[in-house]
Formats: sequence, C-alpha cells, structure tokens
Amino acid sequence: MEEPPEGPERPEPRAPLIPRYHGQGYRREDVDRRRRWIEEQTRCALPQVGASTLPTESFRGNIENPIGTVQMPLGVAGPLQIRGEHADGVFYVPLATTEGALVRSYERGMALLTRAGGAEVRLYQDENRVAPIFLLDSVAAAHAFARSLEAHFEALKSAAEATTGHGKLRRVECHPVGRRVIVNLVFYTADAQGMNMIVKAADAVCQWIATTLGHDRYQIFSGYNGEKRAAGSLFAGGKGKRVVAGAEIPARLVRAFLRVSPAAIVELWHSTVLGHLQSAALGYNGHYANGLTALFIACGQDVANVANSAVGITDFEVTPGGDLYASVTLPSLSVATVGGGTALGTSPECLKMLGCGGAGGAPRLAEIAAATLLAGELSMAAAIASGEFVAAHGEYGRNRPVAETPEVTP
Amino acid sequence: MEEPPEGPERPEPRAPLIPRYHGQGYRREDVDRRRRWIEEQTRCALPQVGASTLPTESFRGNIENPIGTVQMPLGVAGPLQIRGEHADGVFYVPLATTEGALVRSYERGMALLTRAGGAEVRLYQDENRVAPIFLLDSVAAAHAFARSLEAHFEALKSAAEATTGHGKLRRVECHPVGRRVIVNLVFYTADAQGMNMIVKAADAVCQWIATTLGHDRYQIFSGYNGEKRAAGSLFAGGKGKRVVAGAEIPARLVRAFLRVSPAAIVELWHSTVLGHLQSAALGYNGHYANGLTALFIACGQDVANVANSAVGITDFEVTPGGDLYASVTLPSLSVATVGGGTALGTSPECLKMLGCGGAGGAPRLAEIAAATLLAGELSMAAAIASGEFVAAHGEYGRNRPVAETPEVTP
Amino acid sequence: MEEPPEGPERPEPRAPLIPRYHGQGYRREDVDRRRRWIEEQTRCALPQVGASTLPTESFRGNIENPIGTVQMPLGVAGPLQIRGEHADGVFYVPLATTEGALVRSYERGMALLTRAGGAEVRLYQDENRVAPIFLLDSVAAAHAFARSLEAHFEALKSAAEATTGHGKLRRVECHPVGRRVIVNLVFYTADAQGMNMIVKAADAVCQWIATTLGHDRYQIFSGYNGEKRAAGSLFAGGKGKRVVAGAEIPARLVRAFLRVSPAAIVELWHSTVLGHLQSAALGYNGHYANGLTALFIACGQDVANVANSAVGITDFEVTPGGDLYASVTLPSLSVATVGGGTALGTSPECLKMLGCGGAGGAPRLAEIAAATLLAGELSMAAAIASGEFVAAHGEYGRNRPVAETPEVTP
Amino acid sequence: MEEPPEGPERPEPRAPLIPRYHGQGYRREDVDRRRRWIEEQTRCALPQVGASTLPTESFRGNIENPIGTVQMPLGVAGPLQIRGEHADGVFYVPLATTEGALVRSYERGMALLTRAGGAEVRLYQDENRVAPIFLLDSVAAAHAFARSLEAHFEALKSAAEATTGHGKLRRVECHPVGRRVIVNLVFYTADAQGMNMIVKAADAVCQWIATTLGHDRYQIFSGYNGEKRAAGSLFAGGKGKRVVAGAEIPARLVRAFLRVSPAAIVELWHSTVLGHLQSAALGYNGHYANGLTALFIACGQDVANVANSAVGITDFEVTPGGDLYASVTLPSLSVATVGGGTALGTSPECLKMLGCGGAGGAPRLAEIAAATLLAGELSMAAAIASGEFVAAHGEYGRNRPVAETPEVTP
Repeated sequence: MEEPPEGPERPEPRAPLIPRYHGQGYRREDVDRRRRWIEEQTRCALPQVGASTLPTESFRGNIENPIGTVQMPLGVAGPLQIRGEHADGVFYVPLATTEGALVRSYERGMALLTRAGGAEVRLYQDENRVAPIFLLDSVAAAHAFARSLEAHFEALKSAAEATTGHGKLRRVECHPVGRRVIVNLVFYTADAQGMNMIVKAADAVCQWIATTLGHDRYQIFSGYNGEKRAAGSLFAGGKGKRVVAGAEIPARLVRAFLRVSPAAIVELWHSTVLGHLQSAALGYNGHYANGLTALFIACGQDVANVANSAVGITDFEVTPGGDLYASVTLPSLSVATVGGGTALGTSPECLKMLGCGGAGGAPRLAEIAAATLLAGELSMAAAIASGEFVAAHGEYGRNRPVAETPEVTP
Repeated sequence: MEEPPEGPERPEPRAPLIPRYHGQGYRREDVDRRRRWIEEQTRCALPQVGASTLPTESFRGNIENPIGTVQMPLGVAGPLQIRGEHADGVFYVPLATTEGALVRSYERGMALLTRAGGAEVRLYQDENRVAPIFLLDSVAAAHAFARSLEAHFEALKSAAEATTGHGKLRRVECHPVGRRVIVNLVFYTADAQGMNMIVKAADAVCQWIATTLGHDRYQIFSGYNGEKRAAGSLFAGGKGKRVVAGAEIPARLVRAFLRVSPAAIVELWHSTVLGHLQSAALGYNGHYANGLTALFIACGQDVANVANSAVGITDFEVTPGGDLYASVTLPSLSVATVGGGTALGTSPECLKMLGCGGAGGAPRLAEIAAATLLAGELSMAAAIASGEFVAAHGEYGRNRPVAETPEVTP
Repeated sequence: MEEPPEGPERPEPRAPLIPRYHGQGYRREDVDRRRRWIEEQTRCALPQVGASTLPTESFRGNIENPIGTVQMPLGVAGPLQIRGEHADGVFYVPLATTEGALVRSYERGMALLTRAGGAEVRLYQDENRVAPIFLLDSVAAAHAFARSLEAHFEALKSAAEATTGHGKLRRVECHPVGRRVIVNLVFYTADAQGMNMIVKAADAVCQWIATTLGHDRYQIFSGYNGEKRAAGSLFAGGKGKRVVAGAEIPARLVRAFLRVSPAAIVELWHSTVLGHLQSAALGYNGHYANGLTALFIACGQDVANVANSAVGITDFEVTPGGDLYASVTLPSLSVATVGGGTALGTSPECLKMLGCGGAGGAPRLAEIAAATLLAGELSMAAAIASGEFVAAHGEYGRNRPVAETPEVTP
Repeated sequence: MEEPPEGPERPEPRAPLIPRYHGQGYRREDVDRRRRWIEEQTRCALPQVGASTLPTESFRGNIENPIGTVQMPLGVAGPLQIRGEHADGVFYVPLATTEGALVRSYERGMALLTRAGGAEVRLYQDENRVAPIFLLDSVAAAHAFARSLEAHFEALKSAAEATTGHGKLRRVECHPVGRRVIVNLVFYTADAQGMNMIVKAADAVCQWIATTLGHDRYQIFSGYNGEKRAAGSLFAGGKGKRVVAGAEIPARLVRAFLRVSPAAIVELWHSTVLGHLQSAALGYNGHYANGLTALFIACGQDVANVANSAVGITDFEVTPGGDLYASVTLPSLSVATVGGGTALGTSPECLKMLGCGGAGGAPRLAEIAAATLLAGELSMAAAIASGEFVAAHGEYGRNRPVAETPEVTP
C-alpha cells in the first residue's frame, strides 16, 4: 500500500480507471457497457459513436478500450488515369474528409490528368527502417563497433529474418554520434507498413549483437528513423516508398480545366518556393497532407505516418513547347495493404475499390497516392494562381452551384 | 469542340466522370446512387461504406461526391487530470485509431499523470495566419511597400475585420525576399481553426492594398504560413495555439507505472535527441503524430493539420530531488470546436465528452491535446527505455493479457 | 598536489604548456620568444609567420599567445555601383582569398551590375540578440514568468542600457520550452557587431531578474540566438542586419557579360532550388560563403559569423520584358566597423577603401556585402548555366589568358 | 557599339575597370601599380596591405587582381594531446583570429584534454562530392535513366578517373526529383579538398553520359552537394571527412580546469539543446565556427567551407562514475593539405607546425580539427555554465590578468 500522496500528487476526489472486462473487453456488450460508463462519467450521450455497424471483435489488435466507432464522410474523386508500373488504368479514389472543397479540388486535378493521358508514376525504393542506437565506451570503441557490423552483415540479416516471413534486411548503415552508433536497419517489408515486423527483427539484431559481440547498451529507437515525424533525412528515402509522379499537360487543357496558363502556375510555384524557404520548411508542397490524410483514413492506413509521408517536393515547369510539366516527389511514403487497419471495417472496401486488396497492393497504393497528390497540387496551385481559391472555398460551404469540371472523355 | 487529342493526351477508352446530381447530390438516394455507380465502375461491393448511420444532408459543406462513411474504431483513454487555465478537471479522451497498443499506451501515461496530480497546461498564443506575397518592381519598391504597411495597420485591420464577425487581425509582419514581400497576417480566430475565415479576411486586405495602394500583383498564399506542412518557422508560434504541458512526477510513481527510473527516461531522451539531430528532424518528439491523429479524427478536426501541429519539443529531466519533470511544447497546434467537421456525425459527441462543445471550447481542446501528448510521450519513452516496447506491441495483437495499469485512486 | 593519474589520464611524457610572459606577452620580444619556443617544440621554422609587419602590442584584446601573423593575398574586385541608402556610389571591394577565380568571378558580376545601373540595396532590420534561458519550477511558473517580463520591459531596458553607451534594447521575446523560458533580448548595437556589449547587457538583465523577480536559475546563452551557426530562425532576422540587394539587368547585358540568356539563369535557379530542397538545405544560395569570407577576412570581421550570415535566399526571374531580375536576401548578416578586428592591421585600410571607416559604417558595409554577394551569385549562376564553370576554374590555375570582362563605361 | 543605355542602365559618370596587366599582373610592380590605382580611386592609403612579405608571383592561381596581403594575428593553443589513427601525439595548434579570448578558451580545453589523457579521434568517411542534375523528358524517362546509371558504374568511373591522378569515384547515388535526377558522384580525393579535381571528373562523367547515353540536358551543380552551405544532408557524410572526437574526463579535472561540475555542463547542454531545437538549428554546437575559421585561416584552407564543416553535433554526458564524456561529431569536414591555399605564404608553415605538411596530411588535419573543436566546446560550455563567460570576455579586452590554466604535466 502506498503512502498518502503529498506535494505534487494531488489526486482528484474522483478519477476512476476505465473498467476492464474479460478478454480485454471486445464483445459487443463490453463495448456497450464501456460506452455507457463513459457516458455516465462525462454526462454526455454518445448515440452515433454507439451506432457502429462493425463487429466489435474485429477491433481486437487495432484498438483498446473501444466504445464504438467514429464515422467520417467518404467521398470519391476521379477518374484518375495512372500509368505506373504497379497501378495502370483508371481509378476512382476514396477520400475521407470533412474539409469542404477538398474532394472537388482533387477531382478537378484528376480529370485534367486523365484528359492529358494520365499521371506517370515510378517507384524507386521500397523500404522501411528501424534505427537502434548503441552506447559504447568511447569514440574508438564506437568506431570499431561500426566497422565490425559491416563484417557481420550476413549474421545480422539471419538474426533479423528469423523473426519474420516477409521482412528482408537490405542494408545496415552506421551513423556515429560521439561514442554512440546509430545502426540504421533498412528492410523490405512487402505489402505491410511493417513497423511491428521490423521492430521485432531489429530487436533480434540487437540481441544478436548483445549476445555475440557483447554490446548490450542500446535503445531500440534512436529517433533517427523519421517514423511519424518530419526530418531532413527523409529526402534520401528509406522510410517507406520513394515514389515520383508526373505529367506533361498541354497548355490548352491547363487553361480549360484550371483557368490559368502554365506560366501562371510556374510563377505561383516560384513565389511560394520563396515562402517555403523563408519559412525554413522541409521540401515544398501545396497541400500533400490534405490528400494523404483523406486517402489514409479511407484506406485504413496509419494516419500518423502522414507526418513523414507529406515531406516531398512538388515541381511545375513550362516546357519548351509552352505546356506544363508537373510532378510530385515523395521520398518516404508509408502505405500498406496488409496489417494495421487495412482489414478493418470500411478499409478493405476502399482498398478493393482501388484494386489494392490483394498481394502486391502496397506498391500500387503508393503509385495511386502519388498520382492523387499530383492532382491535388495541380488543382491547388491553379486555385491560388487564378485567384479562385477564396471563392471556391466559400462556395462549397454555402451550397451554391460550382463550375462543372470539363468533360474528360471526348 | 476541342481537337482530337494527340501526343501525351491519350484518353482511356473509358474514363467516365462521376455523375453529378441535383443540388450537388447530398440526398440519401443520391449518395446511394453514386455509391452504386462506383461499385459498378470498380466491380467492388461497398456494404460497410453504405452502412453509414449519418444523415447524408449533413455532409454538405464538408465533402463532395459522398458515397457513405468510413468507420474507424473509437477507444477511450483516461482518466487524465488536467490543471490548465481552460481545461481543469478529469478527462476521458476519445481516440480513433487502428494502431494496436496506442490507446493503452496513452492511457498508462494519463493514469500516471493523474496519480501525480495532473498535467499542468498553459496557452501562450492563440493565433492563425495567412501570408500573401506581393511582387513589387524592385528591391527599393518592396522596401517602401513594407514600410508603408506599418503605417496602414488600422486600415488593414478594418478591411480584414469587415469580412468576419469572429476574426481579429492582431499583427502584420513583413518578410522581404528580393523584390517580393511576404505579408504575414496574424489573426485571432476564436473557437474556429478559421482558415476559411481568415483567407477571406486576407483577401480583403489584399484587395484594399491593391485598390488603395495600387499594388495588385500578389498571391493569396506565399507558402510561408506553415499550414499543413512542417517548417522551422512554426516554433515561433503564429500557426495555431502555442501550448505547453508539464508535470513533475515522483520517482516512485515513475517506477510503479512505467517500470523505469527517471534517469533511464532522461538517458533515452538524450540518446534520441542525438538521433533527431542526426536525422535533421524538426524539433523533438516521440510520437506526437499518433496521439494527435487519433484525437483529431475523433473530434472532427482537420486531420491534415497534424503536419504542423506535430512540430514541437518534448523534454524530460531528473529534478534535484530525483523525480521526473516531463513536458511537451506545441508551438503551432491547430484545433477548433466550431466549423469544419466539428458539427458532423460523431465529432460533436467526442467534443462534448471533453466538455469542449460550446463557446470557449478551442483553448480547452488545445490544453487537452497537450496533456494527452504529454501522457503519450511519457509512456512511449518508458516503453523504449524499459525494453518493453517490442513486447507491448506484440501483446495487443495477440490477445494476451497485459500488465494492468496500477490503480489511480488510493 | 594531485594524485598520480590513473585510468584515462595518461599524460604524455612531454606536453609542456605554452610559456606565459609578463603582461600576457604582447611585446615584440615576447611574440618572438613564443614563436621560437613553438619552433622548437614542433621542429618547424616559421619565418613568414614571424615576418609580420604589424606592431605586436596591437594584438592585445584580439588574440592570445601571439606568434606573428598569417598573410593572405588580397585582391580587389570592382567597379561595383551601389544604390543603397547607406552605400551610394562606386566601390572597389577588397577580397582576401586563396580560391583561384573567386575575385574574377565576383568582378564579372560587379561589372555587369554597374553597367546595368547598379545594385539597389535596402536594409530592413539592424539588430543583434542574446537569448538567455531561465529554468522555472513548472510550466505554470514559466508562463507566469514570461507574462511578467512583458510588464517589466522598461526595467529590463534600463538594466541593459546601464551597461553600454551604444546598445539599445529593442524588444524582448519569450519562447517557452517546457518549464523553461528563452528570453530573446534584441538590441540595436550601432556600428559594432556588439556581442560582447550585449552579452554584458544581457547579463545585467538576468541579474535584475534574479534580484528583483527572484528567478536566478538561468544560462546566459540558450543556443537560440543563432550566433555563428545555421538555423531556421535566422530567416526572420534578429541576428544582425536584414538586408536585400537586387537589380534588373537587361537581357543584352546578361548575354554580353555572362554569355547566357536570362532564361538559362532562371532554369539553373529552378534546377538548383530542387537540389537545395532535396538536400534539406537552409535557404538557397550559390556561394554566399565565398564572398562573405573573403570580405570578412579583408575587413577584420569576425569570420565565424559567416555561419549565420551565409543563410539567405537568392532569386532570379525573367521579367515580362525578357530581362533578368536578380536579388539576394540576407536576413542575419553580421558586420561591424568598430570593435573586434576592425581596427587591427590591414582591416582599417580595407574598411576605408569602402568608405566604411567612420561612424555609420556598419550599415554601409552591410549594403556593400549584399551587393557583392549579388554580383557573385550572378556570376556563379552564369558560369554553371553556360557550362563555363569547369573551364573557368581550370584557367586561373593554369595561367592562361581569360576572356576579358566587357567594358563597363560607354 | 551598343546603344546608349536607358531605363535601369544608369552608368556612373566614372566607374573605371580595374587595370589589367601583362600575364594577369602578378609581378611585384603590377601588384604595386594596381594598389596605387586603387588608392587613387578610393583616396585611401594602403600601406599595411602593401607591406606584404610574400612573393607576389606566388599568388597566381589563388587570387586575381592582387594588391598585397592582409595580415591577421596568429596565436597558438596547446598542448593538445590527440590519440587518433592519423594524428597521434601532442600538438600546438595555430589559430588566426581577431576575437579576443578565443585562443585562451581553446587552450584551456586543450590543456584539460591533454591532462585527461588526450582526445580520441576517429575518421569514418573521407569523401567529397559533386552532384550534377539531369533533366529528362518525363518521370518514366528519369526512372529509366537512374536505373541505367547503376549498370554503367564502371564506365562512369573510368570516365571520371581519366581526368585525375588522385580522385577515385567511389559511389553514384541517384536522387530523383520529378523528371530530373540528381546524380551524386562521391569521390575520394586524397589530401586535396579536391573540388576542382572532382568538378572536372564530374564534367567528364556528364559528357560520357551525354555522348553515350544521349542525355545532354544537365547542370554540373544541382545545389544538392552542400558545398559551402548548411544542409541537413551533410549529417550523412559525403561532403568531406566524417570525423568524431571524444574524451572521458575525470570529474576532478573538470572542476580543476573548468571550475564547474560535469553535471553543470550536462545541464547546460540540455538547456541549449532546447534552444537549438526552438531555433530550428541544424545539429548542435557551441561555437564550431570559431575554431574552424581560426584554424582554416591559419592553415590555408578554403575558409568558405566552414559553412558545411561547422554542421555537427556536440555531446556531453555524465558517466556512471560521475565523470564527463564529451564528444564532437563532424560529418562533413572539408580540409586539405595540398591544393588551394595550402602552399601559399604562411599556410605551409602552419601545416608543418601540425605535422600535416606532406602526404597523408589531410586525415591528420581532420583529426586535429576535431580535437581542437572538442577543446573549444568544453571550454565554452564551462564558461557559460560557470557564469564566467561574461567576465572572461571582458578581461581579455581590458588587459587584466587571468586565472592561469592549471599545469598540464605533473
């Protein structure tokens, strides 16, 4: 029994723990009881939270203390023609959002891309990483340790891959900081985002190092890997999929769909690059986070990965022929089609809508995400450059008719 | 009629536009028809998407082309005692996520904070900004322009505030870049996130400048403002609420709840600061994006604002008495309790659960968010420092009992 | 007497201290004796180091343990016509460097600017800062502390300005981080770089706070101020002079002097902006550090301030008329014309060469520095865009004649 | 003959070009004539500039338009015991500076390190890079291009190495940005800083690509390489030498030499890390730029490389035994012992003083630089933590006796 608290420990008269139920409480009745308990504590009715149509047992492994579901409206944007190596065809993209005008804005860019022959997409790297940090006695010991790991790559790989049927250890990069060494373990994780998988594998690597090499002072995370945070190191890839989408768009289509000239878009790019630099921003983008969060929520992705996935570079140029070349470069895009929330509730439906339901879905989803962001960047840049941004955002909230997107098919 | 396309314009044989319905199609039957149309196009059944229990007309202004809703499981973490100026009491925090162990992890930190007397939270600034960029003829003209705006502050303020009943123009800061001037307009937006509001106000300011001062070459956005992207400028505040949460936690509670010593947590902080620096990360945090996205999705926030809101600094110290002082500093946290998705579906229920339903809710929500992240940082740091991280993440997916959180109340 | 060392203390058999002489040893004979001592220790003759023509007593206050001087060749570049508010006229700029082609490159840009009517320069802010950090008991205490400082501004100003005849406390900005508050003290320092001056003033402010407000746990530096290091916060100014230089240059002059078109320079800018973003660089510039170090060494500036002064943004645009608009924006340029090395040896000669010898020299030097960097950016961009860079750098080392710069005067 | 200028071309009545002399004018008489011409133009006597004792012909290849030399006082700090792989022994380090107290401050740290057994230093990578950027027609073409370069590595290597007797092409890394590819060419450059060498080699690579692969739209620089600018990518090395220095220092020596406890230094580190994060600084350091510029000027280094070399991470920890472990990590340190200014004037004397005169000198100089910075970081941190900083800086300018550094040898 603890002593009665003093000093900073000033317990509220009443701060009860959330009740625990048998088996962690995933039965419908447990979820309902827990929700009612919360309703009583907070004196707040939660009918819509309780109106969930999903089987509560399906929540197990994805959430604790469930009390129901949130519902977010799902819109769809398209058609989006993509000419990738993994995604090739016409797509209608599910976007879950509550930001008015977002779906319409992406849709406009998609229609334009489609009319121009589609967005070309290429995947460069397909990786994920965990970067433990080891503490050695001295700078010299750290140096020797880093050198020794190079020689042990095969052993590290064996230790890692013994823990997983899907993950493959691709590279080990050592980053010394004083007498510490960050051991960046770079994996291929197939269709999973794979953090759980590769954390386990990284743990096995660390244990092998501890046991075999005798270096047992480590933390499994060093803060280096850029998981769910913005960092300059993300530009070199390694944290997710490195994917690029681009399209050359004839000037007359730019004008027809976006009501601006290619030159006006490039001038907007130029001005706003200056603003990004002045702001000490990482990379350059118009609003990657908008499209990514909407797509991630729809498709059961780990939405917190937007923090790293939204780091990238949008580019617009006028071609010698006067047309527009637009591209987005996403060095560290985290997407998955197995694991996490991908099998839960509405997520598999949205993934299937994109043809990303089965094996090989993750690279396809990465290409679709990149093409989607390209559409969004085009539309946003045009809305600003044309001066229509203010009007467009006003319209959708006030129920007025909007200018129709020009027809896509002839 | 356009010419038949050539070159890069290679239309798919079949890329039909998504059908438009009367009044933008927000009636239930429109939503159902649109969904069926998508099902046909994608050859994919969408029963759960269609199982939405929300009135479809409520989607208007929040999304276009709706086809239903996504459902994401909602868990609850608490009790979380907060000693703020806007939030003062015990809270149970709704978190929508599909990342297993997340809710349990935050809950552990909350129980600890509560047992230690609560998280202390303070709000420093409460602002939002739009930063148009003006192009002048020359460096000298830009300088004169920037100087002139200082003299016209009252006029700019009048122009801005004529467009809104809630927004107040607080400051105008000029950032010269060559012959351009970024005019950073900083507003108070009450309980709204307020981008739509202040974009309109900024537009009025720009039009006033164009009309009265004769400078009409501007873009409404410069890329400076850090909306929905990570940038160094966010640390000085201005993009949302600048809020700090902290707590002094007795060592024995740290050990009881987190199974590590304060010193081990500080050592983890130290190591991972090095990793952040090596990664050229912005700021330092364990996993702000996790808690923020879960809270934002639950509470109808604009989730894309996680990109700027997740920039901040976590700190852990051992006090002279051997206890732990933990804090999170969030310079640019974007939250709202009116506007956007806050009135839609399950969002108002979650907001009310936190007592943030009415006027004055936004500062309260900001304080709750900061305290929530503090709990998450404590729990995550402890999980890594104790070596339990790998085990914890495995457990929740495999249905094994977990160590119970110690009792909060005596 | 200490114990004989053990463990990591492994003293060399012979590691003698450098001899100390009377009055710190600034007499010629002391300097010579010290140099001879070093020659013996290192078995290395130092005749050129000893060939210094400067009076050794002049070193006092600028260096310790002097053994002579280094000599670095001094070149001159010009004419550079400047149309600033502090620098107005034609200048010949002294540049101390050993990087072949640097002077010629800057000279080319200067001749071009002069032929085009000169570089226009404007100074926005003229400040320097010291940012102590205070540790409070809690987040709430830190908040109250920050609030209280606002109310005490006049007292802080009095405390600061009692220590200096030149420095003026302009602003106090509080940045909270957890239970700490960074107190950014922003000063005007007249013609001095002023760090010594304002550190003393900041110390007085801190002592006033400690004595009067009772908060005595502080460090005089927080790492915030960006002195001699690169940081995103520098873009908002505050660390030195915020100065912008620009010029509109007719296309035919661009072609005549730089052998490229304006469009080619802008295309180079575009490509290399992408490279900067990919590199997570701070700002954008071609080679500010080259011109700054050469000018700083010549003019007795604190060369280490290049680390903060070289952070900025270069811009190139094609004007509607097809000409080139070029600019450099230097938000945190540290220059001085009194104090530091400005009165020593060759420095006052170089400062006088620029008309910066007397009072009011520092803003003039800032404008000259900005115009000089503008010249360098133009020339470097052109050398890369034209493909001449490789050839130019080869030539100057191999003694071949170079293409003459076109005549500047008609 | 050009037209009389209009508009922005407003030539000064008198802006004469600097006279050119036979053979670029490196004879003593040319230098004197040029200086006299400048004296006339600027109405300013330059006797000390003209007092140069260096042979003017030696300036050729290092500077253009020479008019003499600047002299900067040279001090010496030591003894500095280093236990590196390239530098092993006791060193006295030449530092050219005009910042009072700098040499004394570094000396104090050196004496402490020496007394503690020396600074341990290790070199990880020894590289330099040029990163051209290629423009392709499309994202797909860029992807194919990047893939093809991997297959052509040997040919690229041959093309590169045909241009140089010393440079070796180690790696080629492709960074896609839209339809462009940054081709990062990483070289070993022996004892040269090597930019001229590897720019030539990179040019040959680009020409090979243009001729053989048919891709001829490139710029030799992309802005990616981080030469002479601060960038996040520098932390991963590649731009110079990646070197780490560290030492474990007994607490009693810390107290004896620095008049603070190890804990006080670590507390200072902690506070100022927070300040760095708040400032969006790159990495963490106390004042690398001070020591680097002083060493670089003394040793004929390209001083502008301080911009990239000063990016790194200083760390301080209390060991379990209560002692201090201190380290500096410099990922991109640019030093050389051949080429550039290393053979000019006083530079070879300073290099020889450090035993870095001959082959293999550059890695040795890198280790010495790292150990020097370690000394400076220790001394600066202690000065701030002890509250002596303000006093120390005052003293050296006011000619008062300073506390002597404790004896190093027993």
